[in-house]
Amino acid sequence: MIDDVPLTTREWQLAARPHGEPKPEDFRLVEVEHPDPVEGQVVVRMLAMSVDPYMRGRMNAGKSYAAAWEVDETMQGGAIGRVVESHSADVPVGALVSTNAGWRDVAVLDARTVQVLPELPGIPPSYHLGVLGMPGLTAWAGLFRLAEFKAGDVVFVSGAAGAVGSIVGQLARLHGAAAVIGSAGTPEKVRWLTEELGFTAAFDYHDGPVAKLLAQAAPDGIDVYFDNVGGEHLEAAIGAFNEFGRGALCGAISSYNATEPAPGPRNMGLMVGRKLSLRGFIVSDHADMRAEFIEKVTPLVTSGELVVRETVREGLDQAVPAFLDLLRGGNTGKMIVKLADDA
Amino acid sequence: MIDDVPLTTREWQLAARPHGEPKPEDFRLVEVEHPDPVEGQVVVRMLAMSVDPYMRGRMNAGKSYAAAWEVDETMQGGAIGRVVESHSADVPVGALVSTNAGWRDVAVLDARTVQVLPELPGIPPSYHLGVLGMPGLTAWAGLFRLAEFKAGDVVFVSGAAGAVGSIVGQLARLHGAAAVIGSAGTPEKVRWLTEELGFTAAFDYHDGPVAKLLAQAAPDGIDVYFDNVGGEHLEAAIGAFNEFGRGALCGAISSYNATEPAPGPRNMGLMVGRKLSLRGFIVSDHADMRAEFIEKVTPLVTSGELVVRETVREGLDQAVPAFLDLLRGGNTGKMIVKLADDA
Repeated sequence: MIDDVPLTTREWQLAARPHGEPKPEDFRLVEVEHPDPVEGQVVVRMLAMSVDPYMRGRMNAGKSYAAAWEVDETMQGGAIGRVVESHSADVPVGALVSTNAGWRDVAVLDARTVQVLPELPGIPPSYHLGVLGMPGLTAWAGLFRLAEFKAGDVVFVSGAAGAVGSIVGQLARLHGAAAVIGSAGTPEKVRWLTEELGFTAAFDYHDGPVAKLLAQAAPDGIDVYFDNVGGEHLEAAIGAFNEFGRGALCGAISSYNATEPAPGPRNMGLMVGRKLSLRGFIVSDHADMRAEFIEKVTPLVTSGELVVRETVREGLDQAVPAFLDLLRGGNTGKMIVKLADDA
Repeated sequence: MIDDVPLTTREWQLAARPHGEPKPEDFRLVEVEHPDPVEGQVVVRMLAMSVDPYMRGRMNAGKSYAAAWEVDETMQGGAIGRVVESHSADVPVGALVSTNAGWRDVAVLDARTVQVLPELPGIPPSYHLGVLGMPGLTAWAGLFRLAEFKAGDVVFVSGAAGAVGSIVGQLARLHGAAAVIGSAGTPEKVRWLTEELGFTAAFDYHDGPVAKLLAQAAPDGIDVYFDNVGGEHLEAAIGAFNEFGRGALCGAISSYNATEPAPGPRNMGLMVGRKLSLRGFIVSDHADMRAEFIEKVTPLVTSGELVVRETVREGLDQAVPAFLDLLRGGNTGKMIVKLADDA
């Protein structure tokens, strides 16, 4: 089972901090010789890596909520790999592992920085980067803890065709939402939401003011809003909230490339009279929900009740194009970069 | 103890719905004959009535969070009175009662719509409109439930010299806040906050951008924000929040007379990365906290640990001037209109 481990690995480095939309020249693919593993370390050959919207924040100087990537250093991010050489009793050769050492083909890692994953029938390794990984737990924690979702709620999800949004909407439906409304950026995504994921209604936010589109899709108002987009979407959701409406603020992809502050919601005054709550969150603060999440969601995935879709790019050289495309909404479901055939 | 009950009462009616800042002509003081009380009713002579910022919303058509006042009808609001004639076994003559029948001298009311108040030594009846009434419970619920205040938090209160804000800041100090910062609209109010109420720091929001003034007053950031003002204050608070900062949104007096939507906070993106929460609320949803609030706050008032100040206007004819002055910040502490000498 021990692969022939190459002595070199290709790695993506941050070449420059972007102003506004990142460009391919802001990144650099290099070939480096990796160090010999020492006691307590493992060598991991990556099967799949994640590109995520939050990574745009890591390109900037200063802490956003994940540490900034350093210029001229190798970037980090979620990746699933297989251990091909082990100097640790805890992590055997052949183990499937979750790591934070994405953006490279091979990594030499301290064994305690990797998590050994179960081999689950019907669950491809890449799902640990999506529905059973960080985006899935984000959906779970945001919906059930931050937004305090309960059966009978009308739920609105922005970025609903994305890795997180597509799970949020389905979890809400499977747990008794009165209606699930999603917004997305193309007619194909909108059709996918209603025809395959069981959303009650969906709209393309390019088709008009979001507030108007939302009012049409949710004529009786909304109780829960899961925000992946921010900006105009957030203002529309505040305006559509019924009394005691709850918003879980997960991201604001509409502003990630902004160079000027976007206008804020002009209807914050509704927060008081309608007794609304808005709560921002980062999934890493909710790791205590992980065991319950895995226990509940895994069977939904294997049974097919929860539909999973990935947008897959092949090969490490496609990682940056995949990331740039993600920021432009080029994915449906989770964007994955496959680094090996058995991902 | 039965007074000589007049057959007529003076009452304030809404004459017109204002556009922007209300004018004296939007109100009308009329003398009306009140009906004879029937079985189950009491006649209440009012001692003091409340004018509150939220009443501005009741002047507009449509529900804000209290029902709109109707044009050409008598307005309502909190008032404390004494029963001068009773046709109910539950509410005897002489009882001190809390009613929603403000804006008049005398009211004939169903006994079940009034609450009999205890006669507390050292507690003037008007305090039941302020520190021991709706504003006090608003401060209590907002601080402890909505903002989840805990000892060690740095607390910022806007409108800190008002009926609610002055109690919020003192409650936070008395319960172990690391620092309490207040904003107000005059140098006198600012001095009152720091010199008499024990605020750590305070500023006059006219003295510069609120974000800058707040950063100077709270160099280590804030954990809790109690918002009575909205607008620029809310944006400044969001910008000053430490991780897991919590905002209780109680009111937005900066916008009550606005005829156009004010700009929203341009920094809502911070909500995610700093894991912030903002929660709007109305005190009536938190009546379950009332018993605990009265039990805990009454001794603080009688001992003088909690400083209470009222801005008092005399006579029903002064009710509208008092209300208009309140909306311009003419009060320090609770604005009260005394309607009888024993208020």
